[in-house]
Amino acid sequence: MAKIKAVGNGSKKDIITKRGAVLFRKKGFAGSSMRELADNIGVEASSLYNHIGSKSEILQNICFKVADDFNIHLNEVEKKDDTVVSKLENLIKFHIHMMLDSYDEVYVANHEWKQLEEPYLSNFLNQRKTYESRLIEIVGNGIRKGELKNMHPHVAVLIILSAVRGLEFWQRHKKNINVSDLEKDMVTHLLNGLTK
Amino acid sequence: MAKIKAVGNGSKKDIITKRGAVLFRKKGFAGSSMRELADNIGVEASSLYNHIGSKSEILQNICFKVADDFNIHLNEVEKKDDTVVSKLENLIKFHIHMMLDSYDEVYVANHEWKQLEEPYLSNFLNQRKTYESRLIEIVGNGIRKGELKNMHPHVAVLIILSAVRGLEFWQRHKKNINVSDLEKDMVTHLLNGLTK
Repeated sequence: MAKIKAVGNGSKKDIITKRGAVLFRKKGFAGSSMRELADNIGVEASSLYNHIGSKSEILQNICFKVADDFNIHLNEVEKKDDTVVSKLENLIKFHIHMMLDSYDEVYVANHEWKQLEEPYLSNFLNQRKTYESRLIEIVGNGIRKGELKNMHPHVAVLIILSAVRGLEFWQRHKKNINVSDLEKDMVTHLLNGLTK
Repeated sequence: MAKIKAVGNGSKKDIITKRGAVLFRKKGFAGSSMRELADNIGVEASSLYNHIGSKSEILQNICFKVADDFNIHLNEVEKKDDTVVSKLENLIKFHIHMMLDSYDEVYVANHEWKQLEEPYLSNFLNQRKTYESRLIEIVGNGIRKGELKNMHPHVAVLIILSAVRGLEFWQRHKKNINVSDLEKDMVTHLLNGLTK
């Protein structure tokens, strides 16, 4: 068996995380083994443990990388001197790109986070709630400024987050619609509605 | 242990299906046993088998009951001489009510259908695809008639179905927003958008 080869800028740990995400998405965290992951990468299981402590650590890396990406982006959006509508457009587009470009990681973070051990579980859950609250705050601001319709900001954020998460089911339509059309239609529908 | 008591208009089979849905939602189909279900209902496991053939049969009953409810409603909506916007409003409201009133059953049908055995699995999957195609057809009609904005109907239907499905995550906001507000805000956002 070969050694784990670092590709491009990715470290060996990055490769294990990436391949772990693919495996966990397909078989679930509980249904995946380190042996299977080693087989997928083409190395001995013992070789994995030179780079990573446990299967749980791989899940932590996946979930907190995804959370970091979303949080860093949200920090930037919040700082910008921009209309609320522009901020929401920016956020929707970022979610779409995360779903398309880091599909395995986002899927695992969305579905398998319950398998995190403490204190990671509480930390992750807390980050999710805070992220959602910050979006609710943005929408609330938009309503107060008169940019957005007067509705419960929780409902608006639930719709936006659910819609982008729903791209999980996009796989079979993928080949018929290109990314820029998808992005344009989602932004239009979620911000300006479906009716003429 | 007691016998299974029929309550109101529900047959004993209905009770088993309802309690099965609660158990499968909490523990997953694979993680649930007939013994546990019997304990929950308060009868001997052997007593369950007087009314139902197997754990798989309970899952079939749940999934196909949910599919029937949605199909019957869609048949009625399609038949109506109504605007596309009204039809969509009607459909969105029905999905919201199914999510709130038959939460366990809809959750199980959404998450555990992959555990159905053939030929039920193919049948169910086919019903889901057909349902989605019929919604796409309705949206497509709305676009052709000039009632709706020109976008990929697949994207619009993905957003609507994902948003109502997202009510899974609604539990912790439930007490702050009443059902009629939720319904009004979801219909407004999904049809007319968030911006003023």
